[in-house]
Amino acid sequence: MKYEDFFNPKYKPAPSDTICTFRIEPLDSKRSMQWAAGGVAAESSIGTWTELTTEKPYMKQLAATVFELSNQIARIAYPIELFEPGNLPNIMSSIAGNVFGLGDLKYLRLLDIQLAPQLIKSFPGPAFGIPGIRKVLKVPKRPLVGTIIKPKLGLRTKDHAAVAYSAWVGGCDIVKDDENLSSQKFNPFEKRVIETLDKRDRAEEETGDRKVYLINVTAETKEMLRRAEFVEDHGGRVAMIDILTCGFSAVATLRNQGFNLILHGHRAMHAAFTKLPEHGIAMPVIAVVSRLLGIDQLHVGTAVGKMSEDRQEVETNIRECTQPLQGLLPTLPVASGGLHPRHVPQLIDIFGKDVVIQAGGGIHGHPRGTEIGATAMRQAVDAVLEGQTLSNYAKSHSPLAEALQHFPSN
Amino acid sequence: MKYEDFFNPKYKPAPSDTICTFRIEPLDSKRSMQWAAGGVAAESSIGTWTELTTEKPYMKQLAATVFELSNQIARIAYPIELFEPGNLPNIMSSIAGNVFGLGDLKYLRLLDIQLAPQLIKSFPGPAFGIPGIRKVLKVPKRPLVGTIIKPKLGLRTKDHAAVAYSAWVGGCDIVKDDENLSSQKFNPFEKRVIETLDKRDRAEEETGDRKVYLINVTAETKEMLRRAEFVEDHGGRVAMIDILTCGFSAVATLRNQGFNLILHGHRAMHAAFTKLPEHGIAMPVIAVVSRLLGIDQLHVGTAVGKMSEDRQEVETNIRECTQPLQGLLPTLPVASGGLHPRHVPQLIDIFGKDVVIQAGGGIHGHPRGTEIGATAMRQAVDAVLEGQTLSNYAKSHSPLAEALQHFPSN
Repeated sequence: MKYEDFFNPKYKPAPSDTICTFRIEPLDSKRSMQWAAGGVAAESSIGTWTELTTEKPYMKQLAATVFELSNQIARIAYPIELFEPGNLPNIMSSIAGNVFGLGDLKYLRLLDIQLAPQLIKSFPGPAFGIPGIRKVLKVPKRPLVGTIIKPKLGLRTKDHAAVAYSAWVGGCDIVKDDENLSSQKFNPFEKRVIETLDKRDRAEEETGDRKVYLINVTAETKEMLRRAEFVEDHGGRVAMIDILTCGFSAVATLRNQGFNLILHGHRAMHAAFTKLPEHGIAMPVIAVVSRLLGIDQLHVGTAVGKMSEDRQEVETNIRECTQPLQGLLPTLPVASGGLHPRHVPQLIDIFGKDVVIQAGGGIHGHPRGTEIGATAMRQAVDAVLEGQTLSNYAKSHSPLAEALQHFPSN
Repeated sequence: MKYEDFFNPKYKPAPSDTICTFRIEPLDSKRSMQWAAGGVAAESSIGTWTELTTEKPYMKQLAATVFELSNQIARIAYPIELFEPGNLPNIMSSIAGNVFGLGDLKYLRLLDIQLAPQLIKSFPGPAFGIPGIRKVLKVPKRPLVGTIIKPKLGLRTKDHAAVAYSAWVGGCDIVKDDENLSSQKFNPFEKRVIETLDKRDRAEEETGDRKVYLINVTAETKEMLRRAEFVEDHGGRVAMIDILTCGFSAVATLRNQGFNLILHGHRAMHAAFTKLPEHGIAMPVIAVVSRLLGIDQLHVGTAVGKMSEDRQEVETNIRECTQPLQGLLPTLPVASGGLHPRHVPQLIDIFGKDVVIQAGGGIHGHPRGTEIGATAMRQAVDAVLEGQTLSNYAKSHSPLAEALQHFPSN
C-alpha cells in the first residue's frame, strides 16, 4: 500500500476505532496533505515507505485511515486489532512512535487521542480519583492547598521535615517533595519518610485536620515498588512518581501493585515535547494516558505563574482528567509552578474547586516564612470561596495582606 | 538566590561535577543570557522563581553553576551531591525536567550531558556490548545485516515466522519485530516466540550461521520481565524494548534482572523531542543514557533513508555509543529506517563496521521477495568490504542487480 492509499474521506469510523488527531506540516510544501497524512497513518499502522512483497490480503483491514483532513489537521482512525489491550507503551509506540521522525515531515503534533471504549476498559484508571482523595483528606468540597518543600534540593532531613510541619500547621493539606528529590545523601529516602510522617502526625493532632505527604518514589521499578511499600508500611497515604522520567511501564506497575496509596503524577520532562505548538505530543494526551494508567492527581499547568501553558491548554488538560471516561474515576488536576496567593482567584475560575493549588516559592517566600505563607494561601482560597476580593479579605487577615504586598501583581 | 546568582564565569568545574550543555533562547530578547541561563541552572538544582525563607547556609554548595556562556550555548556544572547514584529517572528529572516548561524561555535544548565519572560508575552499562554481540553471532568484524518483519503489524504468526525464515536463509543475521508489535491477537507473543525461534533453529542448521531474533517485550514492567524470561527459557538470545514508551525505569529493571539476553533498544517516540534543533533533548543524550542503563544495541538514525537526522547528528550518536566511558562496554549502533542496498556504501562510510544495517522495506520490497532481498543486502555489504562499487559487484550478483534497479538512486 502506498501512503495515499491510507487516505479515505468516505471512511466512517467504527465504534471500536481509536481516533487520533494530528497537526501535520510536510517538509516539501508541494507534497499533498493526502500524501503526508497518509504517511502518518501508514507508519503508525501497517505501511512503510515502499511496497512490500510480504503483504497478505487478510491484513488490509488493519490499515489506519485518514478520514478527515482540514488544513493541516488530520483525523486518523485505527482498528482496535492494532493494539494490545492494557499495554500503553505498545499503543504509544504505534500512534506516537516513529511518525515524529519521518524526514518527509517538517512538523508533526499529536493533539488528541480518543481510545476505543473497549481499549479504555482494559486500563484500571485511578484507584482513588477525586472522590477518594477528598475522602482521605476529609475535605469534601474546597480546593486543596499544597506546597512543595523548597529549596527543591539541599535541605537536610530534619530541616525538610520542619518545613513540612510549618506548612501543615499553617494550613496546607498537602506537602510534597520536589520532582528531583529521591534519595540523595543529604536527605535519604527512608529517614525522610519516617521523620516527615512523624511531623505529619503531630500536625494532624495539633490542627485536627487530615494532612498528606507526597513522597517521591521515582527510581528503577523494583526500587520504586520497595519505596512505595515502605511508605505504605509507615502510614503514608500518597506516593509521588515522575511519570515521564520513570516511564509508562513503571506507572502501570506501580498502579497494578495495589498499594493503598494515592498516586501523585509529576510530569517533569513533558515540556521537552509538549511546549511547541507545531511539534511533539500535546499535554492533553499525557493527561488522558496518566488517567488510564491510574494516576490520581496530576500536574496540568497553571495558565498563570512561571510555566508556559495558556488557559485554553490548561482547560483541555483539566477536561481530559475529569470528563466521563467509561466509568474511570476522574484524576484531580494539580496547579503548580510559580504560584502565590494573588493567583488564587484566577486559578479557581479556571479549575473550579476540584484542584490542588500548590505553591512552593509562593509559600516559603512569604516574608514571615512557611507557616504564615501557608496561612496566607489558605486565606486567599477562603476569600474566593466567600466571594470576597483578596484585597478586601486582606484587611482583616494580615498573612494574606503581607503576601499581597510581597508578591508582585503581575 | 536569584537566577543571576547561578552565573559565574570564574567557576572551574570540579572533577566530580556533571556538565550539561544547553542551547537557550529567552522569550523576551531584552532579558540577559546570564539571567536566562542562570534560571536553567537554578530550576535544575536548588533555585526557584523567588527568594525563599527556607534556605540554609549549608546548601549553597549544591547550586549548579553556569560557567560558560557563548551566544546561546550555556555550559552548566552540577555538584555530584544533587543526584542519586544509579537513579537515572532522578537525574533526568533534574537536568531534563521542569526547565523545558519555563515560561520565560522560548526554546531550550539539552544538547549534551557528561556525567561525573563517579556517577557513570553507578550504572551497569551493557552486559554484552559490541564484543558480546559479535561473540554470540560469531561475526567478528563485518557489519551485521538485519531486517524488520514487514508489514510492521498484521501478519499472522505463521506468516511472520515464514518471513523471518526467508530473511535468515537469504543472509540476514538479525530479524526483528517492529516497535509496535507486542502481543496482538493476530500474532500473540508466546506463539510468536516459539514459532519464530523454531524457524531460527532451522535457518541456523541450513546455513551453518548464527542467527538472532529480536523479540519485542515492550509492556508494563512485570509483564515485560515475564516475557523476557519466556524468551530466555525458549532459547532466545535477544530482547527488544521500546526504551522511551516503556521508560527509563523499565529499561533499568530489565538490565538489572540479569537475563542472558542481549538488549536491543528501539527509540520510538524520540523524535517528539529530538527532532527540532532549537528545543527538547538531543538524541546523543538518549544514546549515552541508553548505554548507561545497559542497552546493548540502539537505533541511532541513518543519515540516509526515511528518517530526519543528518550525518553530523548520527555521528554524534555513534560517538556516545562507542567512545570510552569509564570502562562501560560500547553499545552497537543500529541504522534503521527506509534503508535499501544503495545506502550501504554510505552507511559503512558513516558507521564503520560496527553497525547493524537494518532494512525492512529495502529487503521485503525486493521484486523477488524477502529471501533474495536479504541476499541483495548482504551482497551490498560484501561489495563494500571487498572495495568494489555496487554496480560493478552487481554484474556478477543478480539479487543486488535487481535491487539496484528496483530502488531509486535517491
